[in-house]
Amino acid sequence: MKVLAILYNGYKAAKAEPRLLGTVENELGLRAYLESLGHEYVVTSSKDGPDSDFHKHIADTDILITTPFHPGYLTKDLMDKAKNLKVCVTAGVGSDHVDLNAAVDRKIQVLEVSGSNVVSVAEQVMMSILLLVRNFVPAHEMIERGDWQVSDIARNAFDLEGKVVGTMGAGRIGYRVLQRLQPFNCKELLYYDYNALPASAENTVNARRVEDLKDFVSQCDVVTVNAPLHEGTRGIINKDLLQHFKPGAWLVNTARGAICNAEDVASAVKSGQLRGYAGDVWNVQPAPKDHPWRHMKNPLGGGNGMTPHYSGTTLDAQTRYAEGTKTILQNYFEGKPQDPGNVIVGLGKYESQSYGKR
Amino acid sequence: MKVLAILYNGYKAAKAEPRLLGTVENELGLRAYLESLGHEYVVTSSKDGPDSDFHKHIADTDILITTPFHPGYLTKDLMDKAKNLKVCVTAGVGSDHVDLNAAVDRKIQVLEVSGSNVVSVAEQVMMSILLLVRNFVPAHEMIERGDWQVSDIARNAFDLEGKVVGTMGAGRIGYRVLQRLQPFNCKELLYYDYNALPASAENTVNARRVEDLKDFVSQCDVVTVNAPLHEGTRGIINKDLLQHFKPGAWLVNTARGAICNAEDVASAVKSGQLRGYAGDVWNVQPAPKDHPWRHMKNPLGGGNGMTPHYSGTTLDAQTRYAEGTKTILQNYFEGKPQDPGNVIVGLGKYESQSYGKR
Repeated sequence: MKVLAILYNGYKAAKAEPRLLGTVENELGLRAYLESLGHEYVVTSSKDGPDSDFHKHIADTDILITTPFHPGYLTKDLMDKAKNLKVCVTAGVGSDHVDLNAAVDRKIQVLEVSGSNVVSVAEQVMMSILLLVRNFVPAHEMIERGDWQVSDIARNAFDLEGKVVGTMGAGRIGYRVLQRLQPFNCKELLYYDYNALPASAENTVNARRVEDLKDFVSQCDVVTVNAPLHEGTRGIINKDLLQHFKPGAWLVNTARGAICNAEDVASAVKSGQLRGYAGDVWNVQPAPKDHPWRHMKNPLGGGNGMTPHYSGTTLDAQTRYAEGTKTILQNYFEGKPQDPGNVIVGLGKYESQSYGKR
Repeated sequence: MKVLAILYNGYKAAKAEPRLLGTVENELGLRAYLESLGHEYVVTSSKDGPDSDFHKHIADTDILITTPFHPGYLTKDLMDKAKNLKVCVTAGVGSDHVDLNAAVDRKIQVLEVSGSNVVSVAEQVMMSILLLVRNFVPAHEMIERGDWQVSDIARNAFDLEGKVVGTMGAGRIGYRVLQRLQPFNCKELLYYDYNALPASAENTVNARRVEDLKDFVSQCDVVTVNAPLHEGTRGIINKDLLQHFKPGAWLVNTARGAICNAEDVASAVKSGQLRGYAGDVWNVQPAPKDHPWRHMKNPLGGGNGMTPHYSGTTLDAQTRYAEGTKTILQNYFEGKPQDPGNVIVGLGKYESQSYGKR
């Protein structure tokens, strides 16, 4: 079989750090294994446009491996070219870069390594909430530029204690965020999800479900997005919804960039309607140099906590998703059942409810 | 009586934001109260050198109010000039800028607003640990400069899960840090303190005491300093102790800058012996423009999470320490007993064990 992996370039870093498994250079550590079974293994970062390696190799690829960090966008058109494609594996969590409805139609399975980096992302959410609420970035920049003016930082710095924090999505990541918020003595924890948590889980994290989205955001000092990107969530945080946020609320999105309207969020930060926005996901990745989220600031010069998409690809996470990818491939080659939690699209049908109610 | 307060300047920010109570402009909200009782109230930020307002006014001041953020250093020499001084109130936590032994000798009481910002600082510790371990600063700087190279960030980004975290000091702040670490599934939580926690408190946070300091630091992936500055802690983190840290450990210090030797810490970060250092406290405040902590970086260009000293002066904290200062003054004027937790030096003797065993 031909296995094609779309990974990000590691350059010198990948040579110096062998734990950077998710790079083109280190190939998820799969080459020896795949070649020992007689399979062909092609690894590339070239992914966009008709001349890219991705578009050229997909024609005779049997198994495609991608990641959310440097996503190979598998559109319906590209699937039409992929006559041999049987399985797509996402090394990580989040398979929205694959046209899932088209995969169902073509009986292409879509699997991901569900548990591999949910903790990594939940930690990034906690960090992002704290650094927005506590006004870290302008404080650090002040030190770097040789300045010292405590009042300019303190005037927009708050404690997380006593705030209302809500998660859009209380699944694998959102629930872990709620767990990590427990000791911070927040005023209230809320969640918005089309599935209610089981009563015992809800009690464990002492979170209250709010069923209407506008009602939900209007109650939150901090909103964190922990939902997959699908037809029901694309662009859901836009100018209309932002008007229902508390004035001066903070928004953290480590889920998918396209859940937010980029221009609307940037405008809300610039006006102060949002006190800040942080996250590592962008509606196109790599983000263009002129993306409005790179430089947006609130009226007091802070409120931007953006990073490139890396929260789920810490070295600890890379070990887990490389191992998880290998297990998925082993199961496939040996005809063993997959871990049900890893199956997004089975043979011709959705197995997961994560990508909207089906 | 004459009441003298040494606060930081708020300039425009203080005029725009009345919750910036701890500024010269907003005077801890005490003027009307003090003047209604017939007291004189002098507020200034001018604090260093013989020509400063602080050194001039101290001669006939009865009650001195200072903060840790813009500390008025009350030395023994200055106390000799302060013939009328009866009470020093620290609006915040940490009274190391007052020569406490000299205060004992002169029967000058030293009080602080103990509970006012311990949560604020514990949150800053959690934020600082996460942003070092997860390599936030270089990631954000990459976005700001228009770049996108995930591998350069990921190669030095880790999860907090599975790491050993230890606090030097398990008092009011250190214990709150241990509480907030509970849901992060750390490999182990350790503490170093000359007082053992009560067994029930130790069990609550599932932390193990290590009695030898070198042994303690050698076991930690992350060390957080949550101890007061006193004779026993000044300069305790120096070249000798740093050699006992795990190679590549992270160090967070939001306690007092002088607990660390500044040059030794900067060298350890530059060499990679420390993977990073974050905190908001400096051995002199305001920190000079050429302080080595402003620009130190690890060999991979990250590992600096410094800010000016503001963690305990969020707007939420300012409300609490302004109210707490007023309560201390009221108790003093009305001859009521002080909250025992707020008394560092009583009449001629230490009442707190926080500043070393006495």
